[in-house]
Amino acid sequence: MNDEFYVRRAIKLAAKARGRTSPNPMVGAVIVKNGGIISEDFHRKHGTSHAEALAIKKAGENSKGSTLYVSLEPCCHTEKRTPPCTKAIINAGIKKVIIGMKDPNPKVSGRGILELQGAGIVVKSGILEDKAKKLNEIYIKYITSGRPFVILKIAMTLDGKIATPEGQSKWITGGKARRIVHRLRSRVDAIITAIGTVKADDPQLTSRIKGGKNPRRIVIDPDLEIPVDAKILQIPPETIIIARKSEVRSQSITKEQSAVKERTLLDKGVQIIKYEGEKVKLDWLMKKLGRMEITSVLIEGGSSLNAHALEDGIVDKVMFFVAPEIIGGMGSFPAVGGKTHKKLEEAYRIKDLKIRKIGRDFLIEGYIK
Amino acid sequence: MNDEFYVRRAIKLAAKARGRTSPNPMVGAVIVKNGGIISEDFHRKHGTSHAEALAIKKAGENSKGSTLYVSLEPCCHTEKRTPPCTKAIINAGIKKVIIGMKDPNPKVSGRGILELQGAGIVVKSGILEDKAKKLNEIYIKYITSGRPFVILKIAMTLDGKIATPEGQSKWITGGKARRIVHRLRSRVDAIITAIGTVKADDPQLTSRIKGGKNPRRIVIDPDLEIPVDAKILQIPPETIIIARKSEVRSQSITKEQSAVKERTLLDKGVQIIKYEGEKVKLDWLMKKLGRMEITSVLIEGGSSLNAHALEDGIVDKVMFFVAPEIIGGMGSFPAVGGKTHKKLEEAYRIKDLKIRKIGRDFLIEGYIK
Repeated sequence: MNDEFYVRRAIKLAAKARGRTSPNPMVGAVIVKNGGIISEDFHRKHGTSHAEALAIKKAGENSKGSTLYVSLEPCCHTEKRTPPCTKAIINAGIKKVIIGMKDPNPKVSGRGILELQGAGIVVKSGILEDKAKKLNEIYIKYITSGRPFVILKIAMTLDGKIATPEGQSKWITGGKARRIVHRLRSRVDAIITAIGTVKADDPQLTSRIKGGKNPRRIVIDPDLEIPVDAKILQIPPETIIIARKSEVRSQSITKEQSAVKERTLLDKGVQIIKYEGEKVKLDWLMKKLGRMEITSVLIEGGSSLNAHALEDGIVDKVMFFVAPEIIGGMGSFPAVGGKTHKKLEEAYRIKDLKIRKIGRDFLIEGYIK
Repeated sequence: MNDEFYVRRAIKLAAKARGRTSPNPMVGAVIVKNGGIISEDFHRKHGTSHAEALAIKKAGENSKGSTLYVSLEPCCHTEKRTPPCTKAIINAGIKKVIIGMKDPNPKVSGRGILELQGAGIVVKSGILEDKAKKLNEIYIKYITSGRPFVILKIAMTLDGKIATPEGQSKWITGGKARRIVHRLRSRVDAIITAIGTVKADDPQLTSRIKGGKNPRRIVIDPDLEIPVDAKILQIPPETIIIARKSEVRSQSITKEQSAVKERTLLDKGVQIIKYEGEKVKLDWLMKKLGRMEITSVLIEGGSSLNAHALEDGIVDKVMFFVAPEIIGGMGSFPAVGGKTHKKLEEAYRIKDLKIRKIGRDFLIEGYIK
């Protein structure tokens, strides 16, 4: 068995906790001795033991002289709730450590490796690095930029429409595609939508699958128009509303009415984040969410929010669920709206495009270049 | 070797003449004796020998006692320029005939088989019938309905846009996708476009590939607005213009100006087909084209023509060439426009959807249900 085999196994183990380790990365560890696996484990949840520590504990005395395979460089810093893994590895007498990828945090990257090498341990890094990076694409974005990894999800017809002129959008895609969206919701820290979608569809934006974890819901609602009985406000976790600073709020409601609405929402446990100016700057918002340890965001809005997200340059990944249907109509809502008058040369380009069949629909996914 | 093996070979041979047999079907024939192929051939062009006749001629005396594999039921009627193949098969002493599919022409379907059986020949039909039908989907539509098989081709971005608000559409898709379109043009009898596209892009709509055959170009141009120096009018074969009957033509030009334009176009060798009413009924037009032995049509228009074709129910097959780009914008032109206010339940449904990568782009094709 070669190094790739065990690193692949460590990555696979790590992925078992997908969506549950935030703001930590997913990590898997495999300990091998005399050509056999003597123990393996993975990090389950923020605040609990790291994969390496768990595997070493399982192996006990037996880990002396063994090789540790780990999907991500072991931690060396001590600002965390858990002790640094480098110490545990050294103390266990492990003689070789094979790593999928270095810690992407530029402040500590490579330091864990140096510490291990300093203790006389042979270290090899960058084994199946692409797979290791793909596994933790959310964590890498978050730790290197301080902003969440942003997925733009669109459910559309083959001709790029997301709703009829009357706003009908239920259901463009089939049950299987919708179940994948529910799983996706379970794996992100938050969903962003816009007030238009809340008013039109009154969605729950929850993860209605077995064992699903509901993400935080964020509504861009400049004028606090959200109905107090909106489904999104009834189901935990708490909803975050992004509103304009009250002095510039719409003229259609008085300052007093606005203050009353705000108080009602706060009383319901809603968190309100206020922005300056006419339109929220999404990069500013992402930075704010990053500080709240929201590491991943799924955008589920309409033509305008989708365009806004692309224009503000916050989108990392796109997921288009495409139904084998044509709806047509100049008045139907396009997947991406907005007021931009772009030239073809200025189009947003998608790389690493992948297509797969999802029941009667298909999914096109890729990354914004 | 089983029957499927030789019928597959006959179908493959037949396909060599793709785009060149109209209004005839493509047909391939393989003659097998003592477990070996003794001759094979395919129909090359309307007015030349049929596949069976060619293969029998090649085999000569040797065809006595052999088995003939043919992709389509041999013809029995004598209204054609070529003698019926049933007679040739009987005269050659062939003892068994294995057929991909029956003649789809309801007037003669099964009669060739009956004639062969009447002469004591063992006949088996329906071997790889799906493949045989797919091969001649154009011919089947034409012979059963009297109308051409209609392919709607759209080159769009991932978000379903075919042009920027300023009408820029060159080039959304890459060189490889465009070459496939040129090959497609070479395989159809005609291309339909609309005056809007001619005025915006001044396209040639020719097949600029090695050995490419230019299809007839048809322009829907109600008010004869086409510029006399349009590229489409300079390159053979002759262009067909679909115009409103002059008495109802636009008020912006006088009857005299219109008559002069019409004469100029006719002098350039353009054919003009006139329709009654405000908007041409595309099913009426298809019937007319069918009578002109146009068996296949490729639609290469804009948002409006694409919607018009779908609304009038003439589309058989759709081919979406999709670029890995997002252009967005409410004002950008959608793949399918039109004034329809459809409900989702009324969407055009696509079946037998297939997706394949074409260079940097991909192609989604399917059939209208």
